Amino acid sequence: MEQLHHLEARMRSCTEYLTIKTQTRSEFRNLTPEIEKIVAASGVKEGLCLVNAMHITASVYINDNESGLLADYEDWLEQLAPHAPTSRYRHNRTGEDNGDAHLKRQVMGREVVVAITASKLDLGPWEQIFYGEFDGRRPKRVLVKVLGE
Amino acid sequence: MEQLHHLEARMRSCTEYLTIKTQTRSEFRNLTPEIEKIVAASGVKEGLCLVNAMHITASVYINDNESGLLADYEDWLEQLAPHAPTSRYRHNRTGEDNGDAHLKRQVMGREVVVAITASKLDLGPWEQIFYGEFDGRRPKRVLVKVLGE
Amino acid sequence: MEQLHHLEARMRSCTEYLTIKTQTRSEFRNLTPEIEKIVAASGVKEGLCLVNAMHITASVYINDNESGLLADYEDWLEQLAPHAPTSRYRHNRTGEDNGDAHLKRQVMGREVVVAITASKLDLGPWEQIFYGEFDGRRPKRVLVKVLGE
Repeated sequence: MEQLHHLEARMRSCTEYLTIKTQTRSEFRNLTPEIEKIVAASGVKEGLCLVNAMHITASVYINDNESGLLADYEDWLEQLAPHAPTSRYRHNRTGEDNGDAHLKRQVMGREVVVAITASKLDLGPWEQIFYGEFDGRRPKRVLVKVLGE
Repeated sequence: MEQLHHLEARMRSCTEYLTIKTQTRSEFRNLTPEIEKIVAASGVKEGLCLVNAMHITASVYINDNESGLLADYEDWLEQLAPHAPTSRYRHNRTGEDNGDAHLKRQVMGREVVVAITASKLDLGPWEQIFYGEFDGRRPKRVLVKVLGE
Repeated sequence: MEQLHHLEARMRSCTEYLTIKTQTRSEFRNLTPEIEKIVAASGVKEGLCLVNAMHITASVYINDNESGLLADYEDWLEQLAPHAPTSRYRHNRTGEDNGDAHLKRQVMGREVVVAITASKLDLGPWEQIFYGEFDGRRPKRVLVKVLGE
């Protein structure tokens, strides 16, 4: 009996990589359905799910899937860290033009950690997992790591 | 002997939901004592504790429990993402007036992950776990997930 | 056979504390090599690595190890939350002069959670784990917690 309980509580983990290539420099994409599938396939009943951008000019964050809000984020981030003039950022002296994207990503964050409860992402009513791209038009990866029992 | 060690190292998890209803639109609340109780009750000795807002106009973050600082945060966030005029945000065309709250929450963050060491939250000397509300006066939930051994 | 699998999948954890004392008020330091050593020594093959500042005027974040960018971060944070005049912050009425540092730290974040895959930090090509100090010149601690199998 103890042994059975024990087997049930053994650790499981699962790692997946999503590749995202946006059409425009800046774009938001809802990753929730894809993450839900990965969690279901992992067999983890109770645990944690880490979702992070693997690139440093993109974000993974949780907020509302509402088009007005996504436009507000875009305007607001442009105000906090304008793209132009690109000479504004010392980082751009390396030949890059994405200094602003490294700043925007800090405001929106690199990663989210979401609870898995009863085999599902334990999200609030409006919580959606978003990818935020600030220097797109090239393939970038998002890591999903599931850890639990 | 091996079996004993083994039993000690089996995984445990625990999930709790706190409900918070603030009196004012914007408010900060120290959650540390409640989280400490949940960790103690979980029986986890070594692990991680995730604490996240389940609503997208509120934050969970870690910083100082000092009233001057909390007032500074309020002023600073109002400067970075003013509430009024509410027409400033496209999100508010949906009939909401909380566009600013969705932005403020991104600055302060959705979640914290805290280490559990020797059965306790492994916090630095001034670290306190705070709930930051930016669109309150209605019940909202905070999720606490403990995972470890 | 089942028993063997079971042993392989038992949980491991490891906790380390780094102490950092910067020469200047504000400074960025690349922690990646130290974290890599801790992960290698932990014996964890699949899991999560939490790295967090234990002090509330410092950050742990992930971004590029490029000197121009680090200077851009410094300028940008100074613009978002200026140090002077120190009377600007109510927190400083306590006798402190680090009100700005508590705000800067919120923009850059407290912690990162990094996946461990095949016994290594599962970082993207340019991802480096940084310590960001905003009120230095005294010893401060960073916590590293590894949890996995």
